[in-house]
Formats: sequence, structure tokens, C-alpha cells
Amino acid sequence: MDTTDPPTVPARRKVTVTDRRSGAGVPFVEVTLSDSPGARGPVPNAPVLLYDTSGPGSVPTEGLAPLRLPWIVARGDVEEIEGRRPTRRDDGRAAERRDGDGGMGHAPGGGRRPLRSTGAPVTQLAYARRGEITSEMSFVAVREGVAPEVVRDEIAAGRAILPANVNHPESEPMVIGSRFLVKVNANIGNSAVTSSIEEEVDKLTWATRWGADTVMDLSTGPDIHTTREWILRNSPVPIGTVPIYQALEKTDGRPEELTWDLYRDTLVEQAEQGVDYVTVHAGVLLRYVPLTATRVTGIVSRGGSIMAAWCLAHHEENFLYTHFEELCEIMAAYDVAFSLGDGLRPGSIADANDEAQFAELRTLGELTEVAWRHDVQVMIEGPGHVPLDKVAENVTLQKEVCHEAPFYTLGPLTTDVAPAYDHITSAIGAAVIGMHGTAMLCYVTPKEHLGLPDRDDVKQGMIAYKIAAHAADVAKGHPGARAWDDALSKARFEFRWEDQFALAMDPELAREYHDETLPAQPAKTAHFCSMCGPKFCSMRISHDIRAFADERGVDATTAVELGMKEKATEFRAAGGDVYQEPSPAR
Amino acid sequence: MDTTDPPTVPARRKVTVTDRRSGAGVPFVEVTLSDSPGARGPVPNAPVLLYDTSGPGSVPTEGLAPLRLPWIVARGDVEEIEGRRPTRRDDGRAAERRDGDGGMGHAPGGGRRPLRSTGAPVTQLAYARRGEITSEMSFVAVREGVAPEVVRDEIAAGRAILPANVNHPESEPMVIGSRFLVKVNANIGNSAVTSSIEEEVDKLTWATRWGADTVMDLSTGPDIHTTREWILRNSPVPIGTVPIYQALEKTDGRPEELTWDLYRDTLVEQAEQGVDYVTVHAGVLLRYVPLTATRVTGIVSRGGSIMAAWCLAHHEENFLYTHFEELCEIMAAYDVAFSLGDGLRPGSIADANDEAQFAELRTLGELTEVAWRHDVQVMIEGPGHVPLDKVAENVTLQKEVCHEAPFYTLGPLTTDVAPAYDHITSAIGAAVIGMHGTAMLCYVTPKEHLGLPDRDDVKQGMIAYKIAAHAADVAKGHPGARAWDDALSKARFEFRWEDQFALAMDPELAREYHDETLPAQPAKTAHFCSMCGPKFCSMRISHDIRAFADERGVDATTAVELGMKEKATEFRAAGGDVYQEPSPAR
Repeated sequence: MDTTDPPTVPARRKVTVTDRRSGAGVPFVEVTLSDSPGARGPVPNAPVLLYDTSGPGSVPTEGLAPLRLPWIVARGDVEEIEGRRPTRRDDGRAAERRDGDGGMGHAPGGGRRPLRSTGAPVTQLAYARRGEITSEMSFVAVREGVAPEVVRDEIAAGRAILPANVNHPESEPMVIGSRFLVKVNANIGNSAVTSSIEEEVDKLTWATRWGADTVMDLSTGPDIHTTREWILRNSPVPIGTVPIYQALEKTDGRPEELTWDLYRDTLVEQAEQGVDYVTVHAGVLLRYVPLTATRVTGIVSRGGSIMAAWCLAHHEENFLYTHFEELCEIMAAYDVAFSLGDGLRPGSIADANDEAQFAELRTLGELTEVAWRHDVQVMIEGPGHVPLDKVAENVTLQKEVCHEAPFYTLGPLTTDVAPAYDHITSAIGAAVIGMHGTAMLCYVTPKEHLGLPDRDDVKQGMIAYKIAAHAADVAKGHPGARAWDDALSKARFEFRWEDQFALAMDPELAREYHDETLPAQPAKTAHFCSMCGPKFCSMRISHDIRAFADERGVDATTAVELGMKEKATEFRAAGGDVYQEPSPAR
Repeated sequence: MDTTDPPTVPARRKVTVTDRRSGAGVPFVEVTLSDSPGARGPVPNAPVLLYDTSGPGSVPTEGLAPLRLPWIVARGDVEEIEGRRPTRRDDGRAAERRDGDGGMGHAPGGGRRPLRSTGAPVTQLAYARRGEITSEMSFVAVREGVAPEVVRDEIAAGRAILPANVNHPESEPMVIGSRFLVKVNANIGNSAVTSSIEEEVDKLTWATRWGADTVMDLSTGPDIHTTREWILRNSPVPIGTVPIYQALEKTDGRPEELTWDLYRDTLVEQAEQGVDYVTVHAGVLLRYVPLTATRVTGIVSRGGSIMAAWCLAHHEENFLYTHFEELCEIMAAYDVAFSLGDGLRPGSIADANDEAQFAELRTLGELTEVAWRHDVQVMIEGPGHVPLDKVAENVTLQKEVCHEAPFYTLGPLTTDVAPAYDHITSAIGAAVIGMHGTAMLCYVTPKEHLGLPDRDDVKQGMIAYKIAAHAADVAKGHPGARAWDDALSKARFEFRWEDQFALAMDPELAREYHDETLPAQPAKTAHFCSMCGPKFCSMRISHDIRAFADERGVDATTAVELGMKEKATEFRAAGGDVYQEPSPAR
């Protein structure tokens, strides 16, 4: 498996399609195809445009250009503020002890001062509800190939979110909702045991290069604040976090010492940095904790168990629940979206769809309504580990109790028995739950349950999940989704090997695998594949039928139906040409 | 990825459970587990028995012992025959030219003479219909954990097959049917461009080591006959073939020169060697060929296109269809099962569930009834490339028109866009089609569409498909399937790392991934994992709840409900112990 940037694939290039409304260039990858053979000469194939998340590319120390800043400013509803002053503590105990500068010098991005609402909510939901089509929405409409009104209406109805913190102007707008392409999130982040800032920025770039639609920074190790700053300034995709992780670092790992004030301060810190959505485990209620006691795997969500520990230690209700309205006010002031966390998600097949899980889900539905009252965008997190026969129920119930807010699931894994292959156990569940209407899939890497993903794990996880998401798009009949499959299959059928590689999700690996069996250059133009070899190729017969029809000037079906007898004679006469061993270069 | 035999996993060993009826030892892998921690001392965990296909192990030059020979002979319905004399031509043109000995000296197995029925069908279907429970059936019953009557009745009804050629006595009986565990087939075989006999025998052993329930030898290159002989003599699992491939080699790759006589002779050759099931493309009717003319990818099945080419060249009906009754007579005399081939299966998402595919399926249904009249066992092959939303229809229709004969599908791939990852695109479809009742899944390797699989590809394909099959078993609620998941999840929750590795589908890789992040030996006994690190572990809280309950002598739910207040005090008091940073070795 390659872990370096693959060489450029000549037939692929980044292009932009101008969104007339915002004037912005919407990014795509254009795949140029060679001609198809035709009876009367070559027939051109239109280039294929693929959705592209890799961004314009950045020098990490400088960060990306603030694409959305003019749009944000033009709306006239935010102001520069002094902002909360970062402290050593934000970077965790290691930084406090070290009293150093956080590891990588000053953060990129030119030290912009944070923006905040001057009063009213500055969320895409608020704008959509007012009937406005923002530049972000029109950008997304071009990206998804739909009318901007569709984007606006789906957001206004709460069925989609457009995560776009006013302090993350570098992000290219994208939308998460069941009417749109299924999205994939990649988790990165350091932990107490591994990783540096450089590595995390590199993982971010690497993940978006393989199609990550959003990235969550789940760092729990040193330099949390600084790492996140570097990630945000270099990220062309929305960034999500779980603020309770950083808050816990500030209490030195003691959940019982967490307070609402500390959490609020951490959320403001992150909102001012530009985090686009945050996982909030506000549905882990005190009374639900006992429901997990008889599970095979108890509570496996880190955030869920932090809040459960807090509830038990204080015998009080979850402060994220009791302070939820205040949370909403902060979120609305920066347009941070909620990702309402499933702290009680099942951690094993045995625990799927149980009372604890669904009790929390119902609470998330109530909180969705609260958030919406504050014009805050909401998506809902889902499992986890679920056997295939119980997957659909998750979506059905989520849609019902959460009023069609977008669903965002972790897999689910469809079996527990294959650690080291959980990108596969879960891609199965992800594709199925995606087909049923889940809007975003959180990837799982081969290291799940075992360790922290490295660069190649990020790639393996991304590829498995882009497959799951695309399989779901095709199954849902998303307009245009199947065009990619059809273009590749047509290229395959016509032995246009270079086109097949260029259209592949991983062009370089496809070519490498082909070359292992048939390395010579002529094999790339061969009218056979390495499966059957040159002697008899199963796909040739269909070409012969078509060629015969073309010569007669009729369609293929008619040709065969009307002219079977003649065709039989033709075939026998042409036999030498059709079935004898062609030279490999043919 | 490892491509060598993994070192022994100490907690795993091969065991046999004696089938009292046949006296045979039915193979399993037993995983010994360590104790669980309990409030009043360690609590033992019962060992887990896993289905095992790896066979007793053989020296390739000697072959396996003929386990079933006494059973076959004891039935008194077969006789030794002179048999068809193999010729140079059987090994293909290369061997004819070379006039050598086929590459590896004489085949193993001691040169037993072939067996054939003395008259009546010697098929497991014939016995089952007479109400007999054969030794093969009782062996299978132990293997599947069901009553032998269930095995007999499913076979008698045609809903299951037990592939067991009287000339392949080395095989350990297994059953294919929707009432039983979902099975996985691995394709091996050389082609004109690659591979040796040694490599193919090695791939066979390797495939069964990773759980292949049957293996198809799809060789189309040199030494076909001899390669198959070595494979059969060393195979503990049923072997399938596609006889038309060898027949085509005998006509030097010219399908129009194929004849019924040549095919029949090839089938007899293979039946006498011991092939347990054969793919027969008898449903590719002349009138169906035009239906494929307007497809995106025409005919992609090699056998299908060979027969289509023959039909078109002669303008006659497929000789496998017109001679089907004679075929049945041969099959019945050795107990070779039909795998009725889907020669018109879709080769792209665009062509899924089309008229050509379903027309052929209906014909396969008619042929199923013909075969059953001859007491010949039948399964039905299925696609291919199918979008997720059209997967279920394949099974529903197949059950209906093929009278619940077992379904055996290739994937299906749920998208065309990821060559080099088609083990994943198709594992998704395989799991779903398995859940809906498909009895056996033909694996797809990462090299599909690109080249011939090597050893590591075989492993990757097998793992992806064992995951799909097990996910389907769990979803179907197959008795006992989930016990494996539960045992692993319990081990995970209790931080029994060694047990988790031993129970994993790929123990060595799971351990390797764990050790990359936390290499030290103490980490294997650590009460935290590499995801969160030692400081706060999400799974610890649940343990604390249980420990509290145990101390009070009540169940966990009651403990939390009744004693929340007390618990809160406890938690605060015990806080230092529970949430502070433990030493890594703890």
C-alpha cells in the first residue's frame, strides 16, 4: 500500500466550475477520457467530473486563503471581538509543565481576530429559514448538482446542515443531508501515547486527498489547542471536535471535576478558533446510566462515559443537558453545528438497539427541537455495532424521533470478530445504513479497537468508506451518482485501460495490480484482460455482436433477431479473426 | 500484510468432536480463554469452538487420507471402473507440444481407480429422499450444530446440497443451504499468462487455512488435468470447476469447435478425478443472447460468452441445454452437483436485474427440476454487479423460480468504481445477499478485473468474505453464530487482550496492530486500550458500576437505581483510584 502522495494521474486534473451567484470556483476533479471505438470512427467520451474534497492545497505554515470571509463579512451580522485569550492550560498539562510555545511556533493564518454575531443567530439555518440563499448554499448547489433552492429548503427544514463556522472561512462549503451525496468523516487526532502536530496536519491533508468530507480532531494528548489551530487553518473541509475531551484534559483526566463553566469556556475557545461542529453528549441522562449496567460492553463512547461518570459522581443531571439552551446561544453566535453524540451507543453486536441506546436517541430528538428553536444546526450521531438485520430500524427510529435531522453514524460494524479488518466489517453496515438515509458516515480504520491509525490506515479507512458512501448513493438513485460507475464500466468493456485506471477510486493501485500480471505497455491497449488472457476473452463476443449490427445499420438487438442465420455464417467465416489468439499488442 | 503461514496462536488448537453415527472426528478450532475477573474471584470462560475448514494437513506429494472411502464403499452402490485414460490433450496444448509428464511427476493419492455407480444414482439427494442419514450428513450435522434429520430433510427438499463426489473421498463433508452457515468459495487456478501447479496447491491450502468452504479450480493454462489432480488429492474441501474451460483448451480456444461429445468426455474425465460440483452454463439460450446486445458490459461470464459464441456460430440451441438429461445421468453416477451458471450475469451496475439475467434465471429454474428428477444436487449461481437496492430482488426471484435450490453468488459488487478494492465493494453486497438467504458466496479478491490473485490477494478476499458470511449468519440469527461475537466483545470489555487476539479472525494481524501503538508486554494486560490511553478509559466506568453492585450483593441496575446517592459518594471517595492515571502495567 502506498503511503506517499501518488504521482499525478495525467488524465485527472483539478478544475473549478464557477458558481454564478457567489462567484466562487467550485472544485471538481475532471477525468478526461479517450474515444470509444465506433463503426464509423472514434466516438468521443465526455469528461467525468468527480466531487473533490482535497482543497486548493496549502503551505501548512501559511494556511489556506479565507474563501468565505467576504461572504461572512458582507452579511453584516458579525463583528470582530477581542476573544478569549488562549492559555497554556488549553494545550494540556504537558504544555503547562514545559511552558514552551506549543511545539510549532506561532500558528498560521495571520492571527485574524475572531468573529461573533452582533446579536441574532448567524447560522445557515437562520438564513435558510428567512428564505435566503447564501453564497455557501449556492456553492453547495453547484457541488451537488442541484438547484440552490433545494439546498436552502433542506437546511430550513432541518433535514440538512451546512457546517460553516464564521471563524473557519477557509472551508469549502459542503452539505450533510439525506437528499445529498452521502458524506464521510475521517477522525484524526493525537492521544496521550502518540503523534505530533505535523503528523496530524499531514493526516488531515491526506484524509481530504482521499475524499474526507469533514474531519474530526479527537486529540486528547499534548498541545490540543495548537494542534487544532493548525488543522483549522489548513482545512478545506469542516472540522468537528468533541470539546469534552479537551475539557477533561484541563481537569487532568478527572471527570468529576468537570464543570459547566469549564466546558463553556472550552466551547467558546473552540468556536472562536473555527470548529464547525461539535459532538455534545447531552443525551446521557442520569437515569439512563443504569440501563447500561447489564450490557456486554457497557458504555464504550468516551464522551458518554465521561458524562456518565460525572452524573454518578455528583448524582446530578448531565450539565450539558441542563445547560443546553445556553449551549445553543453560543453555537448560534458562531454557527457551530451540533452533532448530538450517542454516548450510549452499543459497543458490541449484543448491545445493539437496546433500551439505553434508544432512550438516549429519544432525548436527542427533544434536544433537536430545542436547538432548532435557537436556529442552531443539528445532526444526530448513531452507532456503532449493529447486526445487519437491525440496521434499518436505527434509521427509521432516528428519522421519527429526531424529526429527520441528518443522521451521522460510526459504521456500524456488522460483526465483532474481525479486529484489524473493522474498516470492512463496518463498511458493510455503513453502506446499508447509508442506503436507508444516513447522511454522513464516520469512517473506521483497520486499527479500530487496536491502536491509533497511521497514514495508511487513514487511506484504507477512507477508501472503504468512500465505497460505502458511493454504493449508498447509487442505491438511493442519487442523480448523477451512477454516471461514474457507467463511465468506468464502459471503459472496462471497451478495454480502455488508461480510462479505467483514471476513473478508479485509487488509480495508482489499480494500475499497479494490473501491471503485476501484465506489465508490458502493450497490455494497456490489449483487447483482453489478465483474467482470461489473450486466447478467449469473454467480453469480445458482445463487441462482435455490436460490430455486426453496426455494419448492417440496425440496432444490435434487431441484428441478432433478424439476422441470426446470416450472423451464424458470418461468425463461422470470421472465426479466425475473432477467436484465434491475437498478438498481445493487439 | 503477511503472506507466510502465521506462527501458531497458542490459545488456538485443532480439535475433533466425534460424530457417533459415522465415528468420524469432526474438525473445529478450539479457542481457550482465560478467566474473567469476578467480585468473588476469577470466573472461568468456556472455550469457543470455531468452524474449521483447514483439513488435517497433507504432504502434497502424498495427498490426504480418503476419509469418506469406507462410507462410500459400505453403501455398496459403486464399483471400481477402468476409467477414461487421461491423454496429453487433457493437459492442454503446451503439454502436447512438450510431450512431458505434466510438470510434477505422477500425481499423489496412490493411483486409486475411479468409482462409479453400479446403476442407481449415488447422490446424497437420492439417499436423503429415501430417508437415509448418510455418514456425510451426520458429520455435517455435528459441524453445523443441528440434528442430522435437519440436514437430511433440507437436502431431500433440494434446499441444500452436500457436494461429495465418490472419487473425492478426501473431502470433509460440508453442506450448502440457507438453513446452514453461509459458505465461502475461493477461486484459484492458473491462466495462459501465469502460475504453476505448486502455486495452485499452495493457494488451495492457503485458502482453506483462511476458511474457504469450497475451492473452484478455474485453470485455463497449461497442465489443467494434472493441476486438478494435485488439487483434488490435497483438498479437504469440495472442489468445483467449469468444465467448458478445459473443453475450450482442447479446441485450442475456438468455441465454435466445441461439441457435445468433447464436453461429455471432459465432464467424465473430471467426474472420475473427483470434482464435486461443476458450473454448467446450460441457461444461455440462443434467444437470450440478443438481450445482452444493448448492455453496457454485454456478456462478462467467460462460460456464458463461450456458449453464446457457440450458439451464434452454429445458430443452434446451447448443447448443454439440449443434452441436459444426459448430463444429469453422468452427474448422478458420481454424485457431482450442478452449479447452474449465470452466463448472462450483469458485469456492471447498469446491467443489473435486466431481462437477459432474469430470463436465464427462469431457465435455470426449469433445469433444476430436470436435475432433481435425476436425483442430482443443484445450486444456482448469481451475480455479479448489483446496486444495493436491487440485491434483495435477486434472492426473492431466485427462490421463487428455482424452487429454493441454494443460491451461490459472486459478490455482488455494489459499485464499479473501485478496482483494486473489489473485495470490499463486493463484501458489502455479499453480506446483504447472504442475509437474504444466499447459501454460498464466491469471493472476490482485490485483483478482480485487474489480474490473477496471488497468495495475499487470496487471503484478503477470504477475510473479506468470511466477514460477509459471518455478518449474514449473525443477521439471520443462525444458532450459535453470535456466540463468537459475544465472546470476543466480552474479552474486549474485560481487557483480556490475549483472548481478543485469539478469537480474532486474523489473530496475528490484530496483535501486530495493537503492538504498533502499545508494544510493551504489560500493555497486553493493561486495563485500557490504545485508543484513549491510560488516563481515562471509556470502558472503565461500566466496570465500576458492576463492582459497586457486586459489593452490595445486588444486580447492577438495582444498585444504580437504589443507591445512586450512596454511589455518588463512593465515586467521589474512590475518585483517585478510578480516574487518576494508572501505571501502564496496571
